[in-house]
Amino acid sequence: MAKELKELTKRADNYSQWYNDLVSKADLAEQAPVRGCMVIKPYGFAIWEKMKEQLDKEFKKTGVQNAYFPLLIPKSFLSKEAEHVKGFAKECAVVTHYRLKSSEDGKTVVVDPAAKLDEELIIRPTSETIIWNTYRGWIHSWRDLPLMCNQWCNVMRWEMRTRPFLRTSEFLWQEGHTAHATRVEAEAEAQKMLKVYADFAENWMAVPVLQGVKSETERFAGALDTYTIEAMMQDGKALQSGTSHFLGQNFAKSFDVTFLNKENKPEYVWATSWGVSTRLMGALIMVHSDDNGLVLPPKLAPIEVVIVPIFKGDEQHNAISTKLQPVIDKLQELGISVKYDDSDNKRPGFKFADYELKGVPVRLVMGGRDLENNTIEIMRRDTLEKENVSFDGIVERVKDLLDNIQNNMFEKARKYRDAHVYECDNYDEFKERVKDGGFYLCHWDGTEETEAKIKEDTQATIRCVPFAYEQTEGIDMVSGKPAKCRVIIARSY
Amino acid sequence: MAKELKELTKRADNYSQWYNDLVSKADLAEQAPVRGCMVIKPYGFAIWEKMKEQLDKEFKKTGVQNAYFPLLIPKSFLSKEAEHVKGFAKECAVVTHYRLKSSEDGKTVVVDPAAKLDEELIIRPTSETIIWNTYRGWIHSWRDLPLMCNQWCNVMRWEMRTRPFLRTSEFLWQEGHTAHATRVEAEAEAQKMLKVYADFAENWMAVPVLQGVKSETERFAGALDTYTIEAMMQDGKALQSGTSHFLGQNFAKSFDVTFLNKENKPEYVWATSWGVSTRLMGALIMVHSDDNGLVLPPKLAPIEVVIVPIFKGDEQHNAISTKLQPVIDKLQELGISVKYDDSDNKRPGFKFADYELKGVPVRLVMGGRDLENNTIEIMRRDTLEKENVSFDGIVERVKDLLDNIQNNMFEKARKYRDAHVYECDNYDEFKERVKDGGFYLCHWDGTEETEAKIKEDTQATIRCVPFAYEQTEGIDMVSGKPAKCRVIIARSY
Repeated sequence: MAKELKELTKRADNYSQWYNDLVSKADLAEQAPVRGCMVIKPYGFAIWEKMKEQLDKEFKKTGVQNAYFPLLIPKSFLSKEAEHVKGFAKECAVVTHYRLKSSEDGKTVVVDPAAKLDEELIIRPTSETIIWNTYRGWIHSWRDLPLMCNQWCNVMRWEMRTRPFLRTSEFLWQEGHTAHATRVEAEAEAQKMLKVYADFAENWMAVPVLQGVKSETERFAGALDTYTIEAMMQDGKALQSGTSHFLGQNFAKSFDVTFLNKENKPEYVWATSWGVSTRLMGALIMVHSDDNGLVLPPKLAPIEVVIVPIFKGDEQHNAISTKLQPVIDKLQELGISVKYDDSDNKRPGFKFADYELKGVPVRLVMGGRDLENNTIEIMRRDTLEKENVSFDGIVERVKDLLDNIQNNMFEKARKYRDAHVYECDNYDEFKERVKDGGFYLCHWDGTEETEAKIKEDTQATIRCVPFAYEQTEGIDMVSGKPAKCRVIIARSY
Repeated sequence: MAKELKELTKRADNYSQWYNDLVSKADLAEQAPVRGCMVIKPYGFAIWEKMKEQLDKEFKKTGVQNAYFPLLIPKSFLSKEAEHVKGFAKECAVVTHYRLKSSEDGKTVVVDPAAKLDEELIIRPTSETIIWNTYRGWIHSWRDLPLMCNQWCNVMRWEMRTRPFLRTSEFLWQEGHTAHATRVEAEAEAQKMLKVYADFAENWMAVPVLQGVKSETERFAGALDTYTIEAMMQDGKALQSGTSHFLGQNFAKSFDVTFLNKENKPEYVWATSWGVSTRLMGALIMVHSDDNGLVLPPKLAPIEVVIVPIFKGDEQHNAISTKLQPVIDKLQELGISVKYDDSDNKRPGFKFADYELKGVPVRLVMGGRDLENNTIEIMRRDTLEKENVSFDGIVERVKDLLDNIQNNMFEKARKYRDAHVYECDNYDEFKERVKDGGFYLCHWDGTEETEAKIKEDTQATIRCVPFAYEQTEGIDMVSGKPAKCRVIIARSY
């Protein structure tokens, strides 16, 4: 068994360490020399690229166009929207100078004090301000609406405690920013994009998510409503995996963006914004993987099928390769990504462990006896089940198995999640149980006081008012007052 | 005729203003509120996306993998490679602080002086330093080589004089960084990627380029050789459109990146880097467009065919739409992007002018008489020729015309370029003629003095030692000394 694999911490021993180990050993990402930033390695980036490609397609289907807005935002912009400034004008990377010069001894470089900017520039933590400043020039009449742009880019928030993919100072994301003529249309857009995210999470990542709306405290800074998809990790904690915001007219008012309606009267524009980030990588890893390594859903796996021949000498090598080549060709014709690993500088056992670690969904192995018997070994990564099967019809079998794995992974995760959603209206019981993870469906009186107390007592937060559960009447378990709604409460990443 | 079109400056009147007008009026990009930065608008970005998609495919075919490295580089990294520091540690955006706080009056935000970084961070002007610092951990043995990564990202160089796409403080690009076991392999890689760039420019952008190698003065900071593709704009100036660098072992030595060779002895790794940027957009615009607006090669046009019906009343509208629908469907099945513009809030004349401005390669128009006669009007944007043709077989006709336009645009640009390459070994003649543009094939003694004098006298620079022209013996036109080589000299963007 490969050295790397042996060193992977077990989930039961230390879930958090298991995650960090996995990110590093499966070649997904590593810590960069700049605090809180990461290098996304080729294998990790290939997964992100697949996510991007599919999401981008879905966005474009809804009429969204991509564009690019500047990295740097004038400091004054951040102060323009009152709520937004509270949320984002804090832990930001600030550019103050625009030139370096040689040090006096000529051995190094120093900042040139003469090259100080008149106004500091902020590396975007999110782009509402610069985009709404730009939209002012693009929107004049109702004919210019809706305006729906998205950008794929890097953003930066100077996070104090960071973890690869889950919370990093720099991360990659997409941010959609739409402008509409009416409140109804903007609200519908925010909800539509939440649906796009939920469908992607469930159908591509095989990650079941609860859709819902955030409490006021947890809203995006400047939003009237923040919609969220919440996924459950294997330790029962929640991971907010994507958000969509109905921004009302706040940014339009702050940046003076109006349009002439059909009656030729000026009105402020209605806005939404919505984003998912490399955080999705964290969800993907944590929901499915096991003590042997990554488990990837076929639809997002950079390699869907790995084929390992076991041979002695060139003759057998050639015979097996010749037998396998048509299978490789046919799988590739079907759009399935295949790796044929007949390298002879690694032993088969090392290869097996390595592809398990990397989460390749299906492994085929053919040795001399298989060649004689017209058989092949097929293993599925999700359950680790393996079977020796007839070589005939192997292409169809692999194709079906990939579909089966995709569905099985979703069902497994959904069952796990559903088994860990608890109705609870007793605060003592809640405090005791929430330590062990799970989503708690509780009645809430709607006050910030209750929310704050729960967080202080248990570190758990209100994740959302979930759409999937009925809103029943009840009593707030903390205050004893009549509830305004039922919410999901959980500890979270 | 549309208002926007009337206002487009003519090339003959002011080529430079024509370019700026076009970028803005064709909705490609606009100036951002941050000095020297731009917003790439959806239409412009759609062209860039098509470029990216094709280039990315070509890179991957050669075995390159995408990855992502951090935006911010510790200042000290920039000093590590002696030549590199001279070239890049100058006009950089410097991050010195990581927090903002509310001003005393609470009305705005100020930089928190307590949140000063111990070491300043630089927004990457290019990523050799941070990538070679990372490669140290990835490369141990000859088995780890070659290592070939690329990233698509934003970079920043604090340019003093900026022009949209051609020279901006922030720009988008890709940067490939490869590591090899031998000098020969690294040199071959640098040359291979130059070929990928040249093929892309010629076959996709329809922009003919001269491939060649840069003089020492014009080399990338830290390279042993810089290869370039040089395109000629319609004013006869050169535009460096892509470069590929053979970096020798310079970065490996600066960042201590060694590998154990097959004899188990440590050796420094050999490196290349190569990049193209949103500058390509500038080349695309300037090579083909005319006084009516953009002219886009079909392979990169976001809309390849626009269809405009001319109708009075719903009945005729419906009849024409019904007749056209199968054509739209068939074109889309062939992978051709079609826009059917039957909007009734703009007059046909406005639409025609607007799609000309946007460079849509083919326009089809059908009116009532066409419907009666089973005909349709077809116009090609590159020559503005239009023809009334039979409706039967229109799909095939459009398909062939798109190929024809792609080839014709390349041939036209190639002929223009070839007609403006002059052999010249007389300095007085050179000085007189170079003002009017063109590429001058001259003998050069290989000295920096000659190079500097030419630049001082004429603003022209040595673009490259071109591969396509024979290296003949001759006399340097400036110094009168025997020449080392023949070079292309031109004024450039």
